[in-house]
Amino acid sequence: MRHRFSNAPLSRRDLIKAAGAAGVALASAPEQSPAANQAIGSHPATMLRVPFERHAKVRLAIVGTGLRGTSMLAEWLAVDGVEITAVADVIPAKAARAARLVTDAGRPAPAVYSSGERDFERLVSRDDIDIVYTATPWDWHVPICLAAMRAGKHAATEVPAATTVEDCWELVNTSEATRKHCLMMENCCYDFNEMLVDTMVKAGEFGEILYAEAAYIHDLRSILFEDRDEGLWRRTPHTNRDGNFYPTHGLGPVAWYLDIHRRDRFDYLVSMSTPERGLSDWRASHVPQSSPKWQEKYAAGDINTSLIKTILGKTILLQHNVTLPTPYDRLNSVRGTRGAFKDYPARVYREGHPGGHRWSPIDETLKAQFTHPLWQRVGEIARAKGGHGGMDFIMAYRLIETMLQGTSPDFDVYDAAAWSVPWPLSEASLALSSSPVRFPDFTRGEWNGALTSP
Amino acid sequence: MRHRFSNAPLSRRDLIKAAGAAGVALASAPEQSPAANQAIGSHPATMLRVPFERHAKVRLAIVGTGLRGTSMLAEWLAVDGVEITAVADVIPAKAARAARLVTDAGRPAPAVYSSGERDFERLVSRDDIDIVYTATPWDWHVPICLAAMRAGKHAATEVPAATTVEDCWELVNTSEATRKHCLMMENCCYDFNEMLVDTMVKAGEFGEILYAEAAYIHDLRSILFEDRDEGLWRRTPHTNRDGNFYPTHGLGPVAWYLDIHRRDRFDYLVSMSTPERGLSDWRASHVPQSSPKWQEKYAAGDINTSLIKTILGKTILLQHNVTLPTPYDRLNSVRGTRGAFKDYPARVYREGHPGGHRWSPIDETLKAQFTHPLWQRVGEIARAKGGHGGMDFIMAYRLIETMLQGTSPDFDVYDAAAWSVPWPLSEASLALSSSPVRFPDFTRGEWNGALTSP
Repeated sequence: MRHRFSNAPLSRRDLIKAAGAAGVALASAPEQSPAANQAIGSHPATMLRVPFERHAKVRLAIVGTGLRGTSMLAEWLAVDGVEITAVADVIPAKAARAARLVTDAGRPAPAVYSSGERDFERLVSRDDIDIVYTATPWDWHVPICLAAMRAGKHAATEVPAATTVEDCWELVNTSEATRKHCLMMENCCYDFNEMLVDTMVKAGEFGEILYAEAAYIHDLRSILFEDRDEGLWRRTPHTNRDGNFYPTHGLGPVAWYLDIHRRDRFDYLVSMSTPERGLSDWRASHVPQSSPKWQEKYAAGDINTSLIKTILGKTILLQHNVTLPTPYDRLNSVRGTRGAFKDYPARVYREGHPGGHRWSPIDETLKAQFTHPLWQRVGEIARAKGGHGGMDFIMAYRLIETMLQGTSPDFDVYDAAAWSVPWPLSEASLALSSSPVRFPDFTRGEWNGALTSP
Repeated sequence: MRHRFSNAPLSRRDLIKAAGAAGVALASAPEQSPAANQAIGSHPATMLRVPFERHAKVRLAIVGTGLRGTSMLAEWLAVDGVEITAVADVIPAKAARAARLVTDAGRPAPAVYSSGERDFERLVSRDDIDIVYTATPWDWHVPICLAAMRAGKHAATEVPAATTVEDCWELVNTSEATRKHCLMMENCCYDFNEMLVDTMVKAGEFGEILYAEAAYIHDLRSILFEDRDEGLWRRTPHTNRDGNFYPTHGLGPVAWYLDIHRRDRFDYLVSMSTPERGLSDWRASHVPQSSPKWQEKYAAGDINTSLIKTILGKTILLQHNVTLPTPYDRLNSVRGTRGAFKDYPARVYREGHPGGHRWSPIDETLKAQFTHPLWQRVGEIARAKGGHGGMDFIMAYRLIETMLQGTSPDFDVYDAAAWSVPWPLSEASLALSSSPVRFPDFTRGEWNGALTSP
């Protein structure tokens, strides 16, 4: 359906048809959330700017102890004030390995749950858990976060938090109703360059930001075809969906640069995908004809490009490409009234600074001036830990810091929803030959309340 | 009107309204060209792949001898087989200066036309002109090209060829009716990197190209405010239009990479602009309050970003930004099934080549293998002449070569129209909150024929 109109005119009828379908697509969000259609105030109070209760220590449970869960476990163990009280995985050996990593670190043994894929329901019912961190395959993020919040625990999930508009609303409604936070652990928000850029942006070094670029460009073809770990589930959406599956690594930091849900909001997007070649070509050259993988059809275009308009009129270029041979890139760029930043490689331009009309590298002077306070404080430990160059530790450290201090988290359920929803919204736009599709206002009109990133 | 919906839902009604308006906008193209609505064959024969008649020498006239016309005059004089038989400019001193440059080069004095802004009509009526090259302000490109073709001369124009859908059709209809070529002199098609990339693309080095980026990112603020040359006219569209004013420098080369009008065609586009800040800020800090420039309002967003879909489903990112402080960039990138190229700085990635998942620079080995034959033959002279790094000479040399040899030109009136029309089409999309807007098929269905760039 993606190229439905591409060989015929976008006639008035086509666009009206599209409009009709869009009407449905766009309506579906509010449908999921009757409150969204009511006057501000008649729904549960917002979770924007709601502080954590103070914790003497943070009791954390992990659901999903595969590659990511195990990697993050090492980061959690390195942060003071964390106790791992429970771990769960559908594969008993993986849950046991995680428990062993905890005891090997000289900590009390966590409870272990691995009796089937819904055993997390027993885990969340414990009374010694403050927050449940989920590192499962994408489809499990929502049920586990909902179960955790309904059991009175805060929820933290890997990215994306949800893959449908309805599930994004379900997370928002549940966080508001239970007064528990639902945080999407977007580690790229905490990477060195992203935090440096955010610091420069907030310092006004680039003037008013008018445009930003966010992407996940990462050649995952071999991983997607492996018969273990991500290969077991991450190829599936390529067979039955299209759009931007993985918007948050690029969009999270950009949302901080643009003060999204502080003084601006995503308004609408348009999206375009290329044809699919990458997985088909890879299969042809790497997968034996006997493999059941030859029964698959790949529905997702190799490169999905979306343009997001914000309420203040800013433009965000958002791209996803995991199935072609090209170097890793999150784009991570901003352009403003006084300068610009581009990443991969990182370079900066500021009007009136030496160097003429050329980019300058991120040199020591710039680092001395704009390294984010978090990286100044714990950057050395972070780099030593090394999870994704240190950003994983900074993210873990910062979450625990806010919970110990009883301050509000750096991001909330509204960010989790708005940063994740470009997948279904881009999919809807593609089905309508790139027609504009509206973002739901997950904050119910309360997005314009200041307060900035850490 | 640009942000008409941006503070209200894109309701079903909005989109239907948009569809209605788009219906009109899209219909306007065919309206201008009744032939386009008739069956293939019932209109004048195509100008696709039509060779020039052989010329013993090429008698060339120049209309507009300001900065660009004078700069190109030096290139024309450096090409063997060219005689400059006439020059015209509304400013007598500029026409006279051009004539003097010709005689100073030891060539016969050209006829000089400078009796008012329509004196080009007398120029085109001469019988010693083969082709009329126009380097006037944008609004004069169409009337001069039409006059030249109707007087039996080939037309060559600076970019953009036209700024409305109607004028694009008028150029096509007139070229077909008069059997004279109308060429848009897109010099960036002939730049070293662009021709190297085109050579690599045609050699299959990147596999099938699925995505390309094209842009004109050039800080023109000081030039736009000058009280001479471009400053006298180039600021005007910023006061009464929006969209991508200058798509061709980026899109021309990309059209060659993607074999547009050879085996593919632009299908539709969506467009998004940021708010305007650049010219307002510049005026505030550089223009005295007494200046009449303070009566101007700036309607064009600083950054316009469009996505173009081709009939084969490829995606092109097309951007325009001339009013913010940022280094020069045409993006000039391609991504395919076997590799990718990015420019600014130029770098290449090809699967299986040494260097792992990293970009490699354009080294001597690559240059030895993929430098375009034109640059191999006359690159040294081109660099010595130096107009825009040599591409101006290569472009001039190549046009004269095709006219002397009697082969078909590298681009034609269909390219001139399709590479220029993103301005009005992006403007239409912006007015419809980024709704998709259809490209007219200027080739009337004959785009899927033979092949290739020089």
